[in-house]
Amino acid sequence: MMKGFFSTKLPKEVSEFIVKFDSVGAEVVSIERALGRVLAEDVSSPINIPGFDRSTVDGYAVNSKDTFGASEAVPAWLKVIGEVKMGEVPHLKIDRGEAIRISTGGMLPQGADAVVMLEHTHFIDETTIEVLRPVAPFEHIIGFDEDFKENEQVFKSGHRLRPQDLGILAAIGKSEVSVYKRPVISIISTGDEIIPIKQTPRLGQIRDINSYTLSAMVEEAGGIALRMGIVRDDIKELKKVCKEAIDKTDMVLISGGSSVGTRDYVLEAISSFKDSEILFHGVSISPGKPTILARIRDKAIWGLPGQVTSAMIVFLLFIKRQIQWIGGERLFPISSKGIRAKMARNIASAQGREDYIRVRLKKREKEILAEPIFGKSGLISPMIRADGLVRVDINKEGLYKGEEVEVILF
Amino acid sequence: MMKGFFSTKLPKEVSEFIVKFDSVGAEVVSIERALGRVLAEDVSSPINIPGFDRSTVDGYAVNSKDTFGASEAVPAWLKVIGEVKMGEVPHLKIDRGEAIRISTGGMLPQGADAVVMLEHTHFIDETTIEVLRPVAPFEHIIGFDEDFKENEQVFKSGHRLRPQDLGILAAIGKSEVSVYKRPVISIISTGDEIIPIKQTPRLGQIRDINSYTLSAMVEEAGGIALRMGIVRDDIKELKKVCKEAIDKTDMVLISGGSSVGTRDYVLEAISSFKDSEILFHGVSISPGKPTILARIRDKAIWGLPGQVTSAMIVFLLFIKRQIQWIGGERLFPISSKGIRAKMARNIASAQGREDYIRVRLKKREKEILAEPIFGKSGLISPMIRADGLVRVDINKEGLYKGEEVEVILF
Repeated sequence: MMKGFFSTKLPKEVSEFIVKFDSVGAEVVSIERALGRVLAEDVSSPINIPGFDRSTVDGYAVNSKDTFGASEAVPAWLKVIGEVKMGEVPHLKIDRGEAIRISTGGMLPQGADAVVMLEHTHFIDETTIEVLRPVAPFEHIIGFDEDFKENEQVFKSGHRLRPQDLGILAAIGKSEVSVYKRPVISIISTGDEIIPIKQTPRLGQIRDINSYTLSAMVEEAGGIALRMGIVRDDIKELKKVCKEAIDKTDMVLISGGSSVGTRDYVLEAISSFKDSEILFHGVSISPGKPTILARIRDKAIWGLPGQVTSAMIVFLLFIKRQIQWIGGERLFPISSKGIRAKMARNIASAQGREDYIRVRLKKREKEILAEPIFGKSGLISPMIRADGLVRVDINKEGLYKGEEVEVILF
Repeated sequence: MMKGFFSTKLPKEVSEFIVKFDSVGAEVVSIERALGRVLAEDVSSPINIPGFDRSTVDGYAVNSKDTFGASEAVPAWLKVIGEVKMGEVPHLKIDRGEAIRISTGGMLPQGADAVVMLEHTHFIDETTIEVLRPVAPFEHIIGFDEDFKENEQVFKSGHRLRPQDLGILAAIGKSEVSVYKRPVISIISTGDEIIPIKQTPRLGQIRDINSYTLSAMVEEAGGIALRMGIVRDDIKELKKVCKEAIDKTDMVLISGGSSVGTRDYVLEAISSFKDSEILFHGVSISPGKPTILARIRDKAIWGLPGQVTSAMIVFLLFIKRQIQWIGGERLFPISSKGIRAKMARNIASAQGREDYIRVRLKKREKEILAEPIFGKSGLISPMIRADGLVRVDINKEGLYKGEEVEVILF
């Protein structure tokens, strides 16, 4: 690898690289533990659901014809011949002029084709009700296969499981499910100035912020973070830790040491692997420009800026999606961690790169205002005060006060 | 308690009840495990951060006065007297006309007040550089207390920890932190027709969907779900399980049996506790109307509709927020699980209640369309096909095709 190699990519080019990596393997988990996991199998229903015609209200199962024309003025009179027990097949069937008491979820008895709501009936003697409104055939009923038909596909592989999805797996009796493993992501902090958090910094030293911030972001993205600790600016040591990380885990994040200086150990370490391919070095975003992506044995190795804000932005824009991708997710829902707001003031920006502005949100009457938070990207405090990021398009020179923007929340 | 008691509340009245419960206790956890937890202490920085003046670029530490007026045509010449080692106090200091090589994050040497970027310099001989642009005092520097000053408050109690927040806890050396315990929420399914998921339903029976759906929602809300299993329609048994749930956990969710029928075991069981207070029975929303909230020993007991869609909507609108509240969260950020979309067709709705319409989102060019998914609230399949909910205001008669709406994603 030539030193000083520098080929800057556009954000959309980076997004194309991201999906060019394979998924991790699958494992079987119980549905109690499957929330947020990604299906590694297609799922069909082995049964009709609910399996029988069910009432959706409390009331009386009837033959709908007996209620046609019923009104408060001219109610229909029906004889109540019994009650449907929940969870059981009704032992009675109704004939014309008869009704059976039924609760929500109860199984419709033979001879009935609809349910009259309790509140539209009155008892006129011990065994007779008057029905004050007509019901249509199948009214207040869920049909036996209305939720899912036998063998109907319920989910495709690549779908991330939500609470209601676990509900349907429960309904079809699928207590275990095949899901992609959580990708394991190793995190390496580099720099002679970085010390473990339990040490007290001397002048010139700073505690390891990035390992903790990035680990938490990996966790939020559905991965498992493996902190490999701090590596000093020593090429041999860095190569050794990189090798261990590549051997053990599915992706490697190295923060620090990726700026274009003379001490570019990270690029040197990554390039030293014989099957290493540097996909790019530099993205036209700010902050976050000095980012490296390499491929070693079909694993992604990211060299991230040492400044925590820059590293976070690169993570939010690209790495999060890649963790989801290698974690098997393919059916990405239309979703948003975004919120619309209006800029609280003008912001200037350079053309030729996407700028990401940290903003704090404020409610003002019905509006939400996005107030820029200024601060160098080497500071972490602006990320604490900020609620999210606003993107300034690569072709824009800035944003105007009052302009509507989408805020990427974090 | 009088049977048939029914006092319907408006959604905003329900929201007021929600915060009238105490928080759970606190515990100390390591910051590796603190993502998404809620701080139970105020946190201040015991030190200045970064603690020393740091360079934000790779370049040369200089006295800014030496660069005033420098340009490509008339560069300033400076003598390079050495290099700042990362993580160490520079042993050299600079005099006028001198410069010291420094990397991003390095400590500024004595005598320097700014850093010139590497790319704005050239070597003209082994020890001399020319500087092509002037720097202002403090340019490319983070001051010793610019991130946080000693004793400055960093977080207030009641704040939910994000990745960057863990970064700052790392920076100040706080490896353990006091957070609220995760609220433990017990979940009870009732109904003679409900069977455990590993059993095969006979006609009239249905597997326990609600326990699994609600457990996952509790987990998403930051709580710990304790499934108490299925209770048959037996008042003694229900009282017994309720008592155990109240004894053991911080909140109780009971699904099924809360519709206003003759078999209203849930209301009867809740009312049987001598310190029980029914806060309301019924909310003017659809679906989700037959919801009960009671207080027993300062714990919230929710009676939820048995239909899974209704139970989910009540959870999303009210219970999630209450779990966050008793989990100590007080500094709710402006956030959104919402997305703006346009209705794909007209939807009618009844006045006098808030209607929640399930919708599927579709991208069409630059627009996102919200397409209503019709289906009875006793079905779970519409919740699988849906991406979110659209609220129809209590005073509106519906939504028009093309109308802009906020979709609550799930």
